[in-house]
Amino acid sequence: MDNEMVIGVDLGGTHMRTALVDGTGSILRRQKTATSISLGVRQTTQRLIAECRAEMDAAEEFGGTVIGIGLGVAGKVDHKRGWVVFSPNLPAMRDYPLGPELENSLGLPVLLENDTNVFGIGENWVGAGREIHNWVGLTLGTGVGGCLILDGKLWNGDNLGFVGEIGHMIVHPEGPRCTCGLNGCLEAHASGRALLEFVNDAASRGWLTSGPLYELWNDGKLNAQGIYRCSLAGDPTAQKAFARMGWALGLALANLFTVLGIRSVILGGGVSAGWDQFIEPLGRSLAEHSSMLVVEDAVIQRSALGDDAALLGAARLALQYYSLPSL
Amino acid sequence: MDNEMVIGVDLGGTHMRTALVDGTGSILRRQKTATSISLGVRQTTQRLIAECRAEMDAAEEFGGTVIGIGLGVAGKVDHKRGWVVFSPNLPAMRDYPLGPELENSLGLPVLLENDTNVFGIGENWVGAGREIHNWVGLTLGTGVGGCLILDGKLWNGDNLGFVGEIGHMIVHPEGPRCTCGLNGCLEAHASGRALLEFVNDAASRGWLTSGPLYELWNDGKLNAQGIYRCSLAGDPTAQKAFARMGWALGLALANLFTVLGIRSVILGGGVSAGWDQFIEPLGRSLAEHSSMLVVEDAVIQRSALGDDAALLGAARLALQYYSLPSL
Repeated sequence: MDNEMVIGVDLGGTHMRTALVDGTGSILRRQKTATSISLGVRQTTQRLIAECRAEMDAAEEFGGTVIGIGLGVAGKVDHKRGWVVFSPNLPAMRDYPLGPELENSLGLPVLLENDTNVFGIGENWVGAGREIHNWVGLTLGTGVGGCLILDGKLWNGDNLGFVGEIGHMIVHPEGPRCTCGLNGCLEAHASGRALLEFVNDAASRGWLTSGPLYELWNDGKLNAQGIYRCSLAGDPTAQKAFARMGWALGLALANLFTVLGIRSVILGGGVSAGWDQFIEPLGRSLAEHSSMLVVEDAVIQRSALGDDAALLGAARLALQYYSLPSL
Repeated sequence: MDNEMVIGVDLGGTHMRTALVDGTGSILRRQKTATSISLGVRQTTQRLIAECRAEMDAAEEFGGTVIGIGLGVAGKVDHKRGWVVFSPNLPAMRDYPLGPELENSLGLPVLLENDTNVFGIGENWVGAGREIHNWVGLTLGTGVGGCLILDGKLWNGDNLGFVGEIGHMIVHPEGPRCTCGLNGCLEAHASGRALLEFVNDAASRGWLTSGPLYELWNDGKLNAQGIYRCSLAGDPTAQKAFARMGWALGLALANLFTVLGIRSVILGGGVSAGWDQFIEPLGRSLAEHSSMLVVEDAVIQRSALGDDAALLGAARLALQYYSLPSL
């Protein structure tokens, strides 16, 4: 058994990352390759096949054999059939049988899952969720992804094609417009995009007229990292953007903890690096909006695996394929 | 096995109800006895013991034997120890070992559970939830109770002493004050108390100046049933109170369905009898606030068991005692 290995893939909009992983969750080799939204479906698939072949060759050098491949993909996937239904990062891959394509070329079972779900599976396996039975996972990036780990397993609900979409919980029915078309979703308050929109809005209303944050905006160079640096340096508009993020996260978590009777959350994704700018307002909001939980009992953690969470979760998917009695 | 019976108890503020139940969920005999918030703990317990003895005698007449007792109690219970922690209906029973007291007197295992949880267990066993794997339960009464049935079982979360408290989900952070002290809870919009407060508020602001609803208010005879009758008869204030209830229920359900990836709800409790006055705004709100679920796929049902849900759920608790491997 100990020479059986799997490949975990994190298929993003700008890069595809692959890792060769053993049965204990150790990464033996990792690769990161630029990809592009402009690449066609064929080319992206071919590149991915080549990366997987390289990992398979590497496995042999380690004296092992690859027994399966797991993929995390942003957006909606049909994990039963292994199809990408729609990925905002890879718009060309609409209703595309990526799993079957890879299986045909590589002769290995291929499992697809939503990127936030593989984050949850990874943290649950060898990360911050390892010893927590029930927890909420949130990935803060351009958008806000969510997942639920219940009874130690990824919760799949009624298999309706969506689950754990915590980013689209409404935290304020008269709140800002979300890309999904609704008003007041968590994502419209607590994502990288929401930070940008908050600053854009302040600037276009003339509330922001000078200083480094204004310069970034004026030069068209505004991004979440820039807003974070300005917030750190004391810019009040940047700080308000992060305070709003923390407020919305605290309210959403209070609601989830109250309903689920649980108390743990793990935060990942690039924007969670701004932790020190939103954790205080998050804690205040959680206290203010919790009727049941004593806030000191809440367990709020950052991802332990960072970028590797998705790779390891995808790898775990492939390993589980052999241990699930129903498969 | 088929002569084994259990007693289900619904311990309310004005009545205690008991039922003799067989292993298939049929009620063989039921009793309803007036109780009173002014009765002492001792007297209430003695009356309950007498009722249970009567059911045990009845079981013998049916050729059976009672093997256990299940109790549903409003409020907070410690179901591991069988204690009532706090019940709004029975304020004298604070931190009271009701389960052990009954066990000592009757020589039978006694299981306690929150009243909305026994509603969920009852509907799940032989009611509207019988064939649904995952669903949200809501009891609309003076307050709003909630429970979650996940994977066919009552969800207990982290056993923190609260779970499924859907009434205390915040649906509008600037909404009306809730009895729990927070603003904008579902309960502050969608309970019998919320209907009353809506009308009280309208009347005391001078927006309600004549008609049957005004008369009820003016005579100090306002209750949820009266508001319902006025709404049916076309009173705009009463209709607005129910519209707000439906709006809040729809928003809360949209959030729960989005996060849990499920689509079913069962509504019970006395105020759910006002169904025809809030179901349309509920449906509209669910459609308006759902980013994921196609609203036609939502399954919104009323309790199939009515008042018996709690009795049968409590009975089921007692039966489960013998089938749970961990006990």
